Amino acid sequence: MKTCSRLSAVFFILTTLVFALPVRAADPLPSWSDTASKQAIVAFVSRVTQEGSPGYVPRAERIATFDNDGCLWSEQPAYFQLFFAIDRVKALAPEHPEWKTQEPFASVLKGDLKSVLAGGERAILELVMATHAGYTTEEFAKISRQWLATARHPTTGRLYTEMVYQPMLELLEYLRANEFKTFIVSGGGIEFLRVFAEEVYGVPPEQVIGSSIRTKFALRDGVPVIERLPEMNFIDDKAGKPVAINHHIGRRPIAAFGNSDGDLQMLQWTTAGDGPRFALYVHHTDAVREWAYDRESHIGRLDRGLDEARRKGWTVVDMERDWKLIYPPLQ
Amino acid sequence: MKTCSRLSAVFFILTTLVFALPVRAADPLPSWSDTASKQAIVAFVSRVTQEGSPGYVPRAERIATFDNDGCLWSEQPAYFQLFFAIDRVKALAPEHPEWKTQEPFASVLKGDLKSVLAGGERAILELVMATHAGYTTEEFAKISRQWLATARHPTTGRLYTEMVYQPMLELLEYLRANEFKTFIVSGGGIEFLRVFAEEVYGVPPEQVIGSSIRTKFALRDGVPVIERLPEMNFIDDKAGKPVAINHHIGRRPIAAFGNSDGDLQMLQWTTAGDGPRFALYVHHTDAVREWAYDRESHIGRLDRGLDEARRKGWTVVDMERDWKLIYPPLQ
Repeated sequence: MKTCSRLSAVFFILTTLVFALPVRAADPLPSWSDTASKQAIVAFVSRVTQEGSPGYVPRAERIATFDNDGCLWSEQPAYFQLFFAIDRVKALAPEHPEWKTQEPFASVLKGDLKSVLAGGERAILELVMATHAGYTTEEFAKISRQWLATARHPTTGRLYTEMVYQPMLELLEYLRANEFKTFIVSGGGIEFLRVFAEEVYGVPPEQVIGSSIRTKFALRDGVPVIERLPEMNFIDDKAGKPVAINHHIGRRPIAAFGNSDGDLQMLQWTTAGDGPRFALYVHHTDAVREWAYDRESHIGRLDRGLDEARRKGWTVVDMERDWKLIYPPLQ
Repeated sequence: MKTCSRLSAVFFILTTLVFALPVRAADPLPSWSDTASKQAIVAFVSRVTQEGSPGYVPRAERIATFDNDGCLWSEQPAYFQLFFAIDRVKALAPEHPEWKTQEPFASVLKGDLKSVLAGGERAILELVMATHAGYTTEEFAKISRQWLATARHPTTGRLYTEMVYQPMLELLEYLRANEFKTFIVSGGGIEFLRVFAEEVYGVPPEQVIGSSIRTKFALRDGVPVIERLPEMNFIDDKAGKPVAINHHIGRRPIAAFGNSDGDLQMLQWTTAGDGPRFALYVHHTDAVREWAYDRESHIGRLDRGLDEARRKGWTVVDMERDWKLIYPPLQ
C-alpha cells in the first residue's frame, strides 16, 4: 500500500495546486485602482457568469463592444489615423505637384496641423480619400502595417501601438477569460484597425467594425482583387454605431465601452436590452500622464454622454484616479 | 497493493475507453457516399489541420464560407424567402386594398407565382420592401420566426427549416470540429437568415452575412430601436460576395461552398489566396429526391461556375451520386 499512498499523496498535492491556481492567481485588473469603477466591472462580470443566478447570461450572448480612439488608445492631439493620412500625403506629394497650393494638402505639407483641423470633416475626408483609396485591400494593409511599425507620436515619441491603455488591455483580456466575445466598434477605418487589432488587442479581424470606403471586386490579369474606391461607404459614429453593431453582430451587446458623445447611441442601445447591462465611459482627466478634455474638445468630445452617464448611473472612469498606469511599460 | 492495483486497472480501462473513442467514432460525414467529393473534403481538412505539415493552416485562419439558398437548403420552386414575402403580402393585404390591382401584389394575391417570377428582380424587390421594411429589427425577427415555425413548403409539406441538406449539416459540423469558423454568405436577407442560422446550422448571428436593407437608429418614446427602411443597402451576390466577406470577416476564406454562378466570385476570391484552398459546388442533379437544374435555371443558375469548376479542378458534388440522404429524417 505504501507506493500507492505516496502516489495518492503526490496526486493530492498536484491536484490541490492546480485547482488552487485560479484562486491564488494575480488580480486580473492590476492597473486598475480599487475604486468604484473596478468594483462595478468585477461585480457585473461575476453576476453574468454565475450559472444559476438570475443575472446569468449564456456564453453566446456575452458580447462586449469597445470604441477605439480615446477608449483603447489615445486620440490627441489628433486621431492617430489622421497622422497616418498626413504622412501618406507627404510621401505621395512628389506625384501631386498640385497639392502645393490646394487645401487641405497645402497645410499638411507646411506641417500646419491647426489649419488642417480647422478644415473640419470635409478636409479630413479629402485627406482620407486621397490616401486610403486607389489601392487593393492587400496593398493598403501593407502600407498601414509599415507605418504602424515605424511612425512615432509627435509628443510621446512612442509608436502609436504603444499608446494603448494598459487598463483596457487588461479589461479586454478579463472579459475574454470570462468567455465574452470582444468587438471593436470604431469611427476609425475598419481596414486600418484590422492591421493591428489582433496583435495589439487580441481582437480578430472579424470582430472589428469601423468606418469604411466602398470597395469593388475585380480581376486584374485574371487575379481577383478587392479595390478601394474614393467614396464613403459607412460612417461608424454616433447613431451609426448601433446600426453597424446590428448589421455585423446581429445581437445587442450586454456591455459597451466608449469615451465620447460619438459612443452615446451605442451605450444607449446596449443598456436598453433586458437583463444585466453594463456601460462605461473613459473620462480623460489626466493632463499629466495623458490628456484632460471633455465637453469643449473637438476631438473626443464628451458632453451629452457625461450627463446621461451620470443620470443613468453608468460607470465613468476617472483616468487620473482609477488607472494606476496609462500605457504599457516600454520593453 | 491490491486496492491500488484494482484502482489502476479501472483507471487504465477508463482511460483506454476515453482515448479510443475518437478512433472508434462514427464517420463524421455519414450521409456522404464514399466518392471523390467526400475524399477531397477529408483530404483538405486533414492537410490544413496537420501541425508541422507544409499545408498546415493556423486555427484563426480556418475560415469557411457557405452560400445558403441551394447550398445549405433548397431553393425551388422559388427562394424560400420569397414564399415568406408572399405570405406576408397575403397577411397585410387587408391594410392595402390598392394591391388588388397593383403588380406584383395582384399576382401574389391570385396565387400566380409564375407571373410574380416573370416580373423579375424588380418585382421581387418590391415585394421585399413592402414586407421586410417598416418594422424594428425586433419586430421583424419575431414575424420571421413565427413564419419559419409554421409555414410549409408547397410540394414537400415540410417546414422550410426541414429542407436543409443533411450532408451539409454534417460538413458544417465536421469543419467546426476541426476548428474552422463557419460563415454563411448569402444573397438572402441577413436578418431573416439570422433568425434560424444558429439553431439550424450552428452558425451564430455574427457569422451570418447577407443582403440587407438600410436601417436607422431612433428613439421611440426614449426607447432605442433600429428601424428597417424601404431602401436597399447591399446585395450580397456575385461580386458582392467577396466584397462582403472582406468587409465582415476581413480575412480571405480558405474554403468556400456554393451552388450557383452567384457564388463564382466568392470561390474565385477564396481559391486565389496562398496555401491550400478548397472550393466546392453543389450540383443539383437529383430530380427524384430534390430538383435537377443548372445552366438554364432562373433560380440558382450554374453555368459559368460549372465550366470554371471543371477547368480549375474544384469539387463538384453530384447530389444524386454523392449524397445518401438529402434532408434530415423527420422526427
